[in-house]
Amino acid sequence: MLKNDLFLKALAGEIVPRPPVWMMRQAGRYLPDFMKLKAQYDFFTRCQTPELAAEITVMPIDQVGPDAAILFSDILVVLQAMQIEVEMKEGIGPWLPHPIQNQADLDKVVIPEVEDALGYVLDAIKLTLERLDNRVPLIGFAGSPWTLLCYAVQGQGSKTFDKAKAFCFEQPQLAHALLQKITATTIAYLKTKVTSGVHAVQLFDSWGGLLSPSDYQTFSWPYIQQIVSALKDDIPVIVFGKGCWFALREMSQSGASALGVDWTCSAENARYLSGGNITLQGNYDPSRLLSPIPKIQEDVRKMINAFGKDRYIANLGHGILPNIPVDHAKAFIEAVKNYS
Amino acid sequence: MLKNDLFLKALAGEIVPRPPVWMMRQAGRYLPDFMKLKAQYDFFTRCQTPELAAEITVMPIDQVGPDAAILFSDILVVLQAMQIEVEMKEGIGPWLPHPIQNQADLDKVVIPEVEDALGYVLDAIKLTLERLDNRVPLIGFAGSPWTLLCYAVQGQGSKTFDKAKAFCFEQPQLAHALLQKITATTIAYLKTKVTSGVHAVQLFDSWGGLLSPSDYQTFSWPYIQQIVSALKDDIPVIVFGKGCWFALREMSQSGASALGVDWTCSAENARYLSGGNITLQGNYDPSRLLSPIPKIQEDVRKMINAFGKDRYIANLGHGILPNIPVDHAKAFIEAVKNYS
Repeated sequence: MLKNDLFLKALAGEIVPRPPVWMMRQAGRYLPDFMKLKAQYDFFTRCQTPELAAEITVMPIDQVGPDAAILFSDILVVLQAMQIEVEMKEGIGPWLPHPIQNQADLDKVVIPEVEDALGYVLDAIKLTLERLDNRVPLIGFAGSPWTLLCYAVQGQGSKTFDKAKAFCFEQPQLAHALLQKITATTIAYLKTKVTSGVHAVQLFDSWGGLLSPSDYQTFSWPYIQQIVSALKDDIPVIVFGKGCWFALREMSQSGASALGVDWTCSAENARYLSGGNITLQGNYDPSRLLSPIPKIQEDVRKMINAFGKDRYIANLGHGILPNIPVDHAKAFIEAVKNYS
Repeated sequence: MLKNDLFLKALAGEIVPRPPVWMMRQAGRYLPDFMKLKAQYDFFTRCQTPELAAEITVMPIDQVGPDAAILFSDILVVLQAMQIEVEMKEGIGPWLPHPIQNQADLDKVVIPEVEDALGYVLDAIKLTLERLDNRVPLIGFAGSPWTLLCYAVQGQGSKTFDKAKAFCFEQPQLAHALLQKITATTIAYLKTKVTSGVHAVQLFDSWGGLLSPSDYQTFSWPYIQQIVSALKDDIPVIVFGKGCWFALREMSQSGASALGVDWTCSAENARYLSGGNITLQGNYDPSRLLSPIPKIQEDVRKMINAFGKDRYIANLGHGILPNIPVDHAKAFIEAVKNYS
């Protein structure tokens, strides 16, 4: 059915002629056509209008040529659906006017009917699948419960998410109750994405690396494991924890099909820490796409040699940066495609 | 001579009755008396007035009781001495009006006579040693060349230091020339600190963890190694690279007396990665000082048990946060002192 199923084959651990490649945030601000839409429509309008989300999702497939599409959306739409207000402020990023601080705040947080509250995402998936016309698979995603708690409690982005951590350390029972509500919503959300036709899902634990290994096992990992367990029989699940090298062993035994790694974890360390058998995804330093193109080509060859051609999905180690020239992004994709 | 030499014994790898303890940024904003001085004198006045620097350095020794003092100063005074203008803006942090962008900018950067340009630091050391009256040893410090380059090029703090990385990746020759100038200045600076009487020095590679292991070996590690090699026969050197777990092996073979580790690297991983023989320092999550005091006491006991009593210096995994209650900081220090 799919014309290009390299990505799904790598997720299944099958032998492939070359690794598949995509880039986190590939439908993003480095694309001039994206910037035109950004000038016309605000952030949540782009997320909530299926026509726009589909157009943005397919844009990099047409323009830079990765082997998988990832639905244009945001991890914070789940908080919105739970009736936690989220705005996107220019120059600041996510802004939550009423962060969760106590039991009363928590009591207002709902576990929604996702088909209603997030119906626009499901519509966007259907429209995107039509536009993709089976050229490449479509990835759906969600943030990890811990990462969503970070925003829900801190109220905005942060280097340290100190308020979110203080909330967990001072009021662990409240924290676990919030994490469990987010987990329940996320499982229902991802299950409807599966029903709507996505081919794989990825969980982003963007802020897991702010926790000690012991606190990670307390406040992040058990909730990711619940989500993986609930989804793994329906669809391949990729877990990406930025800075979470210390948890790769637990992750490899979770039932996930693949693990994302960032650029601070070498291929050798990632294979060792994950036990050597699971598909890995990553890990080119997004800033390194500023290198001259011949250097990018050389680096990509080295990266694939280090991870190995099989059980490997070439990607960046985090989202592509807004200041990357499109021809550098294309050179990255092409270098993987030309690997032999 | 020193009434408490536990810290120096741990650095020398000697058997101790209990580990020594101090806290990064222990002379900082969590202390109400520090805040009073902060309200009266701006940041660089505090650094550049030996009376104030000495008073602030000794304050935590009197008030919370660690086993070592660390001179109150800032890593950016080295850039100022090199005639790179640095301001400290309230609410923003470091601000460099003329960041390094090209050869012409680099040509203006000087390698100063440190006795002149940084004489106030040396005066502060002498005054501090008088006030300490041999109660505990005094640590001098410097930023790593890569970390100083981050500020010199980015012009301010950053989550990703993307401009600094772009500078290195696009103009590596300029980057290496700047790193070498910073290295030469830092070696001269630390040598005069040794002559002035500090008992140990610590290098802070605060932003080393933003680099891939390969780029770390290119842009950060060789310069730290130069500094360690130049100092190690004169004084014990501690290397602390935040997020640099991947480089612990090289660090352990550098001639450094001890390595700092942050809280994302467990004691077990740190001992394994560093080869098991070198003194380690760390690694309590600074946010965890917000926990109830009995939890802090329990965590400290577990931490010491995990690292082992010997070849270990109890510390935080990064600087203490401004919002930590003083009695929680004291409880941390006391829990180490009561370990048996």
